[in-house]
Parts: sequence; C-alpha cells; structure tokens
Amino acid sequence: MALIVQKYGGTSVGSIERIEAVADKVKGWRDQGHEVVVVVSDMSGETNRLVELAKAIQDSPVPRELDVLLSTGEQVTIALLSMALNKRHCPARSFTGHQVHIRTDSAHNKARIVDIDNKRIRQDLDQGRVVVVAGFQGIDEEGNITTLGRGGSDTSAVALAAALKADECQIYTDVDGVYTTDPRVVPEARRLERITFEEMMEMASLGSKVLQIRSVEFAGKYNVPLRVMSSFEEGEGTLITYEEEGMEEALISGIAFNRDEAKLTIIGVPDQPGVASKILSPIGKANIEVDMIIQNMGADGTTTDFTFTMHRNDYEKALAILEQIKQELGAREVSGDNKIVKISLVGVGMRSHAGIAGTMFEVLANEGINIRMISTSEIKISVVVDEKYLELGVRALHTAFGLENKPI
Amino acid sequence: MALIVQKYGGTSVGSIERIEAVADKVKGWRDQGHEVVVVVSDMSGETNRLVELAKAIQDSPVPRELDVLLSTGEQVTIALLSMALNKRHCPARSFTGHQVHIRTDSAHNKARIVDIDNKRIRQDLDQGRVVVVAGFQGIDEEGNITTLGRGGSDTSAVALAAALKADECQIYTDVDGVYTTDPRVVPEARRLERITFEEMMEMASLGSKVLQIRSVEFAGKYNVPLRVMSSFEEGEGTLITYEEEGMEEALISGIAFNRDEAKLTIIGVPDQPGVASKILSPIGKANIEVDMIIQNMGADGTTTDFTFTMHRNDYEKALAILEQIKQELGAREVSGDNKIVKISLVGVGMRSHAGIAGTMFEVLANEGINIRMISTSEIKISVVVDEKYLELGVRALHTAFGLENKPI
Repeated sequence: MALIVQKYGGTSVGSIERIEAVADKVKGWRDQGHEVVVVVSDMSGETNRLVELAKAIQDSPVPRELDVLLSTGEQVTIALLSMALNKRHCPARSFTGHQVHIRTDSAHNKARIVDIDNKRIRQDLDQGRVVVVAGFQGIDEEGNITTLGRGGSDTSAVALAAALKADECQIYTDVDGVYTTDPRVVPEARRLERITFEEMMEMASLGSKVLQIRSVEFAGKYNVPLRVMSSFEEGEGTLITYEEEGMEEALISGIAFNRDEAKLTIIGVPDQPGVASKILSPIGKANIEVDMIIQNMGADGTTTDFTFTMHRNDYEKALAILEQIKQELGAREVSGDNKIVKISLVGVGMRSHAGIAGTMFEVLANEGINIRMISTSEIKISVVVDEKYLELGVRALHTAFGLENKPI
Repeated sequence: MALIVQKYGGTSVGSIERIEAVADKVKGWRDQGHEVVVVVSDMSGETNRLVELAKAIQDSPVPRELDVLLSTGEQVTIALLSMALNKRHCPARSFTGHQVHIRTDSAHNKARIVDIDNKRIRQDLDQGRVVVVAGFQGIDEEGNITTLGRGGSDTSAVALAAALKADECQIYTDVDGVYTTDPRVVPEARRLERITFEEMMEMASLGSKVLQIRSVEFAGKYNVPLRVMSSFEEGEGTLITYEEEGMEEALISGIAFNRDEAKLTIIGVPDQPGVASKILSPIGKANIEVDMIIQNMGADGTTTDFTFTMHRNDYEKALAILEQIKQELGAREVSGDNKIVKISLVGVGMRSHAGIAGTMFEVLANEGINIRMISTSEIKISVVVDEKYLELGVRALHTAFGLENKPI
C-alpha cells in the first residue's frame, strides 16, 4: 500500500463526463489498497470565463480580489469530483486551499507555497477517505486567498506530496509520458520509463511542455518521485527521480528543440570592459529574455563580436534596441537571423562520457547541416541551426544515438 | 456616523451593470461617513447553473459537497463587487464565510448560524474599508463549508449586524418597502414607514414575501433594526423595529392575504377523545401543512364536524386521505372547497382596541361577502372567503380602516 498524490489538469476535468472518468481512475487506485490524495484544476475554460467577468469591471482588477474570484474555479471541480466518487461508494471529501492550510506568501496571482499543514488530510486518509484538494490556491499569513498563477496546480500536487511524504506524485496530462523527442518529428521516438529531475528540467525548459518547470524544481528539492501519465490511456508513464543505481545507463535521454528562435549579432564593437552589460541591460529592461550568449574576438583584435538568441517574437524589438546601441558604442554593424532553431541533446550520461559533442557535430556535418552556435552544460549540448534543418537534424541524432531502442 | 450592514440579493447583483450600480450605492453611504458592511447573494441564475452541474452527476449529491459547490456562487459576487468598489477609489475587501468565521451547525444545505467572530471585519472597518461578505454560507466546527439554504443571505446579514452591533441592517430588494397590502390589488396601498417585528412576521408568513421569516425572527431576537429598501429606486423603505413610544398609532398596519387556499371538512364524526389527532396525524405524515383548524359540535350533539385549510396544491392528496379516515372513524361525509382565500388584518394596535373583529365582519357583510371560517391571534384576525371576493374584500377593508392615509 502506497500513499499517492494525483493531479488532474483542466482538460482532464473539462466536463462532467471527464470528471466521471477521473473518478473511475481514482477509485481504481483506491481499490488496489492505496491511499489517494487528488489535486484538481478548474474545468477547462472556467478561468477564462471568470477573467472575462473581472475584465468587464476593470482591465487590471485588484490582485487580491482576482484571487478570490479565480479560486472558485477549482472549488467547483473538487465538489463535483467528490460527488462522483461518493456516487461510486468511494468515500471522498473535498478541501479548498484554505481548509488544508496551504500557506503561501502574499504575492497575489503568483504566490509561492510556504508551508502545508497535513493534519486535516492525514485525518481523512486515516478514515479511509479519498481527499480531493483544490490546486492552484492557498492562503497567506493573514488568511487572504491567494493563487499560484496559471499551471500552479502541478506545484500544489508536488507540495502536498512533499508535506505528506507521499510515495509518488502522479501528474495526469494529455500525453502518456516523456518521450526521447517529439513523436510528431520522429515517429520512432520512445517513451522514457525514467528520467532524472535535472534532465526533465532541461527537457521542459527546452520546449517539451509536459510539466511546469517550477513543479519539477520543487519535486527535485523535496525528492518527491514524480510520474507523468495520461488521463485518457492506460500506461506506466514516465517516472522522474534522482539518478539511482540500476537506472537506465543511457548516454543521452532525449533530444529537445525550440522552433521559434532568433539570433542577433553586433559586429565590431570596440573591446572594452563592460561591453556585455551595455548591450544586455537595455535588452533586459525591455523584458526580452535572452537564451544563448556568445562573444568572440573580432579579426582585427581590437574589436569584439557579440551574439545572443531570443524568442522570435522579440526579434524586431531587440533589433531596434541594438541599432541604437550600435551608435552609442561605435560598433560596425548589426546582423540577425530570425529563421533559426535550437536542438539540444540532454542526458546525465554525458557527465562521464567524453566525445558526445564530437559525435553530435559529426552527425550533423554528415547531413550537410551547418552549426551556427554551440552552447554546452554538464548534461546538455545545444546547437543552433537553420530552421529548415530541424527535422533532418533531430531525426539523424535520434538514430545516431539509438534513442529508439531501450538501453540495456 | 453609523455602522450599517447592507444586503443585496441575487437580482440586485445579477449582472456586471447591476454590480456597478450597487457599488455606486455603497460608495454613497460610505461618502456620507458611515461604516458599511455589505452582504451579497450569488448572481441570479448562478445557483441553478451549479445545481445543474451537480445533478448531472447525481440526483441527490452528498450535502457536504453540494455546499462546497454552491458556496462558490457568492464568492464570485464578493470579488466582483470589491473590484467595482476599488475601481471607484472606495477601499474594499471581500471575505468568504470561512474567512470571517461565520460558524454554523453541521446541517449541510440548511445550516443555522451559531456564532460570528467580528474581529477580522472590525479590523478592516477600522482601516476605513468597506467589508464585503459572502452571504448564505459559513463553516461548521470542523471547518466544513456549510450553506444556510436558499434565501439565507438575509439571515447572514442580520447575524452580522447583531455580531457587529450595527445601527441598522438594510435589506435591498426589488420592492421599495412593506405596503399596507399588495398594491396590485389596492392601488391606494401605502408604504409603511415603520412596522414591528411581530407584525412583519405575520405579514411575511401570510404571503407578503419581502423578507425571509427566519431573518425577521433573528432580527427580533437580537433587536437589530431592519430596513427593507429598493436596490433600484431611492427612498427610505420600511423600518422594522420593536414597538416604541411615538410609533404610528395605527390600529391596523396591513392586510395580508393568501390566494391558493383550500379547505376540507369531515362531517358527522362520532365524538370521542382523540378524534382530532386521528384526523391530523395521517395528514401530517403525508407532509401536508395545515393552517386553520376548526371543530364544531354537530346538530345531533353526538357527532362533531372537523374543518381545516391547506395549500391548494395539497387538496387532492388530503381529500383522498380523509375519504380513508371517514371509513375508519365511521363519519358521515367529507366535503371540501378548493376555491377559497384567506384575508388577514394585522396590527399590534389590535391588542388594546376591542371591536376590530366586529368592524371587519360588518364591512365584509355590507359587501355581501360570506365568511366561511374565522381565526384570530393577538395581533391578527383571519377570515376565509370565496376566492371571487378576494379583491373586493381587501379593498373594502383597506378603505374602511383608512390604511391609505398615514396615521397621525
């Protein structure tokens, strides 16, 4: 018998039929003898309906009151799911964030969980009940209702799992696990049985939008085994844990990619201390998030070339800022490209194996793919290539590293 | 400067436009220097929407979970009204029943308020804020969410007014006060400036459905001055208090009537102890509410005739039960009439003035109206007459007792 925290998102509880299906699933786990705590989001579309009501009054409503409003969404779902469970003779009780004391800071609309009192939940579990908790919400020290911001239900589930010392936190989504890469690009992509927190964070931040990064970070911090599963299909999903003995001995766990990248280069900047900051500060102030950064000496030895990547949507804005900076710094030229993509190999196995980067570059060269930028970390190698090479590059790497086969 | 508790019902907050209008009204009171606590219902239609969701799962959902679901209705309204107030630079904060500790018993869906902790509200009032509280809801001793049942928002407002020792509790509705009788029947009907709790209870229970009886009872018990006002028009409304020196010295305050009455008589019942109970017990068991009851000796002196009134909807059911009882008791006959109405004079002035009944009967006789039954209490005289005489009777009495003129 295990204690399991399950989280079902908005699509999984988007209608009465779906809620009934979730109730079947939850009852199944309980019938196997497990203790189950369920965290749910609001029914899909409900947040938008509530936001529309608020916006009819004011474009930027008071954050405190917006939280009071939005938190009703999950409260509707917990009540309906508990009804559906009780109908199945599966005793269940619903709780708001307030009722189970999910304490957060006071940053309305984007609060962070500080503490959870597990007594009330423990008490109901001990009486054999399924406990259904509203995700995404809590209360601050003064008892004001707070919300964790969109997608915060994953974090609620992980925090509850940590507070209850649960054996596993299962996140139910519309995919059946984490894949070696996007199956729409590589049909042979394989579902991973396990992956480490670190790898998952790299995969998530690189565009495999299965889980909220914050919840993965949280799960890693409190060492909560996290499992991504499908609400709609049977299956084991993907378990996210710390590296363990006997874990898959793969060099590479997966290939992530970002489609909508762009890069800008400012060429011939007179080399002097503080150049990087003079370029990046105005970019940051304009709320443009910069990803990869490369600085090279220019051919003449007295100037430097500075390149960075950003989301394609920010390209025009960043370009205008750089043209301005070019004048101020007396640089020669600004050039850019908004038709690039980033491909990344991710794997904890890289740590102990040299030569991965070499293999990667060779595979891409054999396909005639020109590498425009390179960036590496301990468990990741990223390259920037022309947009048109994305599928070709990902498929070639997937095959070259044998990701379609389960490692022995 | 006074402390005022205001309650706005579902129609008054039924749309964003209406909520904005309520915000204007509330701000007006605060600008006059008053401290204001506002209690609101859910936006009209919202309870039905939520009940539909629940019924899609189960016809009789678990009461505890139904309360979790329904209590979201008012939570939406308090947030929206607080936003509308803040938009008007009128500082306001919303609170759920849980947040201001409206403690109830555990009778889900029809809970009764046990206690209110006024500290949190007092604190916000002291900081110059308007406090917006969700009506109709509370929490029980274990922290479970409860609801007071439909219409319970009036009771929430009165209970808050009592807990805060408010100067007045204003109930905003779609009528501008309590009238001497229904203006649709008597166009000269006059709005009462004041009425006593006792009179209001008689008026309310007799069909002037302006206020929930329970809230009037509650206000009387805790001596909270209650004022019925219109959400849509300006005006003083009607103040409901205890009898005071200098109050209107009217004999009669108003004329109430019930349209949908019916009566049944069982004739020639052999007179023996326990007859009344043998007749009324099966009626009660069938959930039929009996109003007036009269028992007469029959002409022969050995049998008795037994008559009672009920709601017209229960007539057929009650008739069938009486036919059965007739056999068992060896009575002679059952006769009935489902085309009757009840007209009642209500007034605390009756207590000290004899002859009101005589005048009433005379007025009706002069109009050729036959009285079928009579029932009296300390501050009320009710007569049953044929349905067709309702308007004629009410108008004649209204004129005869001079209700269209304000008493001097």
